[in-house]
Amino acid sequence: MKFIDKLQKAMERNRSWVCVGLDVDVSRLPDSVRSQPDPILAFNRAIIDATGDVVCAYKPNLAFYLAAGLDGMNALQQTVDYIPAYIPIILDAKVGDIGSTAQAYARAIFDTWGFDAVTVNPYMGRETIDPFLHAADKGIFVLTRTTNPGAHLFQDLICEGHPLYHEVARRAASWNRQGNCGLVVGATYPDELRAVRALAPQSVFLVPGVGAQGGSLAAAVQHGPTADGIGPIINSSRGILYASSGPDFAQAAGQAADSLRCQINDLRRSG
Amino acid sequence: MKFIDKLQKAMERNRSWVCVGLDVDVSRLPDSVRSQPDPILAFNRAIIDATGDVVCAYKPNLAFYLAAGLDGMNALQQTVDYIPAYIPIILDAKVGDIGSTAQAYARAIFDTWGFDAVTVNPYMGRETIDPFLHAADKGIFVLTRTTNPGAHLFQDLICEGHPLYHEVARRAASWNRQGNCGLVVGATYPDELRAVRALAPQSVFLVPGVGAQGGSLAAAVQHGPTADGIGPIINSSRGILYASSGPDFAQAAGQAADSLRCQINDLRRSG
Repeated sequence: MKFIDKLQKAMERNRSWVCVGLDVDVSRLPDSVRSQPDPILAFNRAIIDATGDVVCAYKPNLAFYLAAGLDGMNALQQTVDYIPAYIPIILDAKVGDIGSTAQAYARAIFDTWGFDAVTVNPYMGRETIDPFLHAADKGIFVLTRTTNPGAHLFQDLICEGHPLYHEVARRAASWNRQGNCGLVVGATYPDELRAVRALAPQSVFLVPGVGAQGGSLAAAVQHGPTADGIGPIINSSRGILYASSGPDFAQAAGQAADSLRCQINDLRRSG
Repeated sequence: MKFIDKLQKAMERNRSWVCVGLDVDVSRLPDSVRSQPDPILAFNRAIIDATGDVVCAYKPNLAFYLAAGLDGMNALQQTVDYIPAYIPIILDAKVGDIGSTAQAYARAIFDTWGFDAVTVNPYMGRETIDPFLHAADKGIFVLTRTTNPGAHLFQDLICEGHPLYHEVARRAASWNRQGNCGLVVGATYPDELRAVRALAPQSVFLVPGVGAQGGSLAAAVQHGPTADGIGPIINSSRGILYASSGPDFAQAAGQAADSLRCQINDLRRSG
């Protein structure tokens, strides 16, 4: 099944545009989990059990698993195996490398590790994206306008009449012939979100920044869907994972994810 | 010891600017290695034994280890442990993420995995670089003008009067106050190499692209050194690793690395 079809099915089944960012910081794990033999995996399993029926996707970020060494990478592999098969998993690794290395990354991420999609960084140009695009059943999300305060430094530079991120959006839209090339556009910048939607009407958006980063949910719901009404994938990480630091952390995460889902669905109805 | 001091000592000890890119493609391993229980590690050990006295650094690329799954990551960890302590190890992962995630990457790469330096992608802006810069004893190399054929797509866009990579070079030069922020500049584009050197006279260059990618060694030697005469770090991966596919692969790799070292040193003398 193509990534976009898998995503749409999960969105419909759970009536949800919520993606939980599985960014597990070992120093923030609840005490009740920390004492277990594989704390990262125990935490993720509890989060997945509590949120599996209210999300459209999960998005682990490679950094947090690498930070825990081989144990962390093992927990990542087992987390992928644990997530119900109908829910797409996006590896957030923001990869970008020369063609032969990008081929190795595509093989790694899609075949070896079993992810459904990956985030990619466009700075190195087209052929660094191609090996991912060629895996037509998988998905990619090209960093376009990111959520962080310093994103403007290069992304907003005026290049030949337009901000650099417009050029990235236009190019990435042209790479979407098979419906497998989406864009990362932060909710923290609503005007930029609207501008990118105008430049790439058919591209699925992955929208981080609505939780701890304080982005606009209304803008994400208004400008986030494709022209065909798909998505966006609205990611929250810390706001869900660390909704409680007590033994009720999983229940609190489930409630936080469901609350976000309901807010989004209310905005969709009133939009 | 600061990264730059460790690098200079290794350069002096081995009279070498050669870096071997440990980009181990499992499908290209010699038969004599493939039958061993941990073929990637066996290959790397043989390569390190054969090249350890003619290099200034090693640079494994994360993609190739991820592609081999947990076994690959285990081989990466053991490869780091096996490399002689006086030789700096640069993780080529081209990372770039929001501040809190970049902190996790810095912790992962420098503390958990024990690398001396890392390559970073500047697209997301300044605070995605900061956590790496704050580790003042470690090194970073900012992607500036890369070696691949499609690098021009975004890197050469004219932004406010100059190509984008000039702006990246200028910014990254300003981040080098502690001498820990170098640049990645490909040998495949000699004019760009010269231009970046003029913009960032004190920044150590990591120069890929001289081997299989066909870059200009003369240009790397001429424009590569800092104003103080340090480096550049000239990387070759496939040209050394796969110099022979027979049981003599390690000897051939040692000869290829030494030959590159001698070519560079001849150019330095005649320059």
